[in-house]
Amino acid sequence: MQEMIRVAVDAMGGDHAPEEIVKGAVEAVGLSRDIKVFLVGKKELVEEKLKAYSYGEGQIEVVEATEVIETAEPPVAAIRKKKDSSIVVGLKLVKEGKADAFVSAGSSGAVLVGGQLLVGRIKGVERPPLAPLIPTEKGVALLIDCGANVDARASHLVQFAKMGSIYMEHVVGVPNPKVAIVNIGAEEEKGNALVKETFPLLKECGDINFIGSIEAREIPHGQADVIVCEAFVGNVILKLYEGVGAVLVSKIKDGMKASFRSKLGGLLVKPALKETLKSFDATEYGGAPLLGLNGLVVKTHGSSKAQEVRNSILQCVTFKEQHINDKIKENIIREEG
Amino acid sequence: MQEMIRVAVDAMGGDHAPEEIVKGAVEAVGLSRDIKVFLVGKKELVEEKLKAYSYGEGQIEVVEATEVIETAEPPVAAIRKKKDSSIVVGLKLVKEGKADAFVSAGSSGAVLVGGQLLVGRIKGVERPPLAPLIPTEKGVALLIDCGANVDARASHLVQFAKMGSIYMEHVVGVPNPKVAIVNIGAEEEKGNALVKETFPLLKECGDINFIGSIEAREIPHGQADVIVCEAFVGNVILKLYEGVGAVLVSKIKDGMKASFRSKLGGLLVKPALKETLKSFDATEYGGAPLLGLNGLVVKTHGSSKAQEVRNSILQCVTFKEQHINDKIKENIIREEG
Repeated sequence: MQEMIRVAVDAMGGDHAPEEIVKGAVEAVGLSRDIKVFLVGKKELVEEKLKAYSYGEGQIEVVEATEVIETAEPPVAAIRKKKDSSIVVGLKLVKEGKADAFVSAGSSGAVLVGGQLLVGRIKGVERPPLAPLIPTEKGVALLIDCGANVDARASHLVQFAKMGSIYMEHVVGVPNPKVAIVNIGAEEEKGNALVKETFPLLKECGDINFIGSIEAREIPHGQADVIVCEAFVGNVILKLYEGVGAVLVSKIKDGMKASFRSKLGGLLVKPALKETLKSFDATEYGGAPLLGLNGLVVKTHGSSKAQEVRNSILQCVTFKEQHINDKIKENIIREEG
Repeated sequence: MQEMIRVAVDAMGGDHAPEEIVKGAVEAVGLSRDIKVFLVGKKELVEEKLKAYSYGEGQIEVVEATEVIETAEPPVAAIRKKKDSSIVVGLKLVKEGKADAFVSAGSSGAVLVGGQLLVGRIKGVERPPLAPLIPTEKGVALLIDCGANVDARASHLVQFAKMGSIYMEHVVGVPNPKVAIVNIGAEEEKGNALVKETFPLLKECGDINFIGSIEAREIPHGQADVIVCEAFVGNVILKLYEGVGAVLVSKIKDGMKASFRSKLGGLLVKPALKETLKSFDATEYGGAPLLGLNGLVVKTHGSSKAQEVRNSILQCVTFKEQHINDKIKENIIREEG
């Protein structure tokens, strides 16, 4: 018999909690007998929603957490104060080995801080990066790091490159992923102090497919699969993707209202346009893993519906089945030894 | 009689040199008797192109420069070696006070390096920033700094904010421009070490309208008029704007080819779409000034045609008429005194 994979899910986090979270969990366990989900949140409320569905016996268990951390709360204080919040209780299930992973659509800050404080890092990992998938012309790329810890050192970026490479190959399924470092020119001598220090270290890494620098212009074209950068820059890239996309789409919609001719045309292209824009929406690619922890923590977008919740749970299953953390451990230990 | 404004123009720089550069210069001098353009480049070639046009007597003068710096050449070496290149000769006209400004669509690196080495900084200016205008939902914003000097200090960013504010108000014509610093959250305590150090200094500046942090997501929405950041981040923002825009547009075009219905609609919306996309193309806003020099140096996009060249020349005229450098000097000296 295959090993059961246990995923704790924050039933109270995100704009559509608990309805869509519960629905996503039911959909996920419906896909395999080997998945168990702990729905963490206000028991009465969650059980009420759960009643509407049927699912494999014992595949879903509700775990009581009486508090909820709001998005606006300062993360560190919230994690310390709200010990019975769905995020703290869920993360503790991972820490205690009762769950393999934790998925939340709640407060990003609290998930990031809590993941580091409560679950803890893999020995040898200096800093756990948050690594969302972003859309490109060719598919997706892993942008690592977009977390909350800025001013990284070169050794951190080298670990990001390795962890990102393992994740992209074994979870997303891109063989021999191309790794690049964000830079302001293609030449090796270009860059700021951090990039100049990191570049030769990445070049020396035997275990990644390092292709050199990538300029921001090339990122959406899909020239690399793993995009390594320090968190401040990663954050700017992730958010500008969203911002430029949103404004361009709204401008295009306005433009289509400009004349009768374009209005008519707009009606005709609407379905195709919607499909296209969806494929290029950074929020569509669900969960961003916080890598390098003793367990997996996945932050899904606050606007996640059942589909993204289900996909994030399945992502945790692949992560566990592919023994990603064992691969990270081997890689980091080999490096240190 | 009004003072003549003299602009040196690199006749050899960019993808459409010399034809479009010459055309743009003729268009510019056609708009005012008070503009004089020095077309710097291979005399025979430029004069050949110039023969096709008529223009005010003495308003255009061809200045011989026998060499051309190619985009691929390492900038510092090129500036040192090619002393008779159009960029070096043009910049020297500014240094010697024979021209008020220099416009080039040639090698960015060479223009940036040459501007600093040959024209020199205004006394008190620590570092000259390159400040392109980027499109937003509401119009344009000045992104300062996108230059080649990375790893800035807080005092540099404060000067960028001041110079950008003066430029945006008096050249672009935005009264009391809103100044923001690029950050990864809206709260004052967020950010990397540089932003945390700079934020309180900007808050103390009495002469700018500082509105606080701006997240990259908000930049395209036009929340601020002057976007202050260190050059590495500015470069990432500028280039990602281009990249996301280009890929999104190509995806939309592909999407419109998906079915007969969408093909027909695509034909109908094409003119409106083209207009919309043009208004959101970062390359459409012509020249990026290199501020803080003894004179003005403007870098226009390599793909510039006559219209952008003309606009860049007119930008130099406004810069001179509005006494921007006197305003910068006053501002910097007041600060230092």
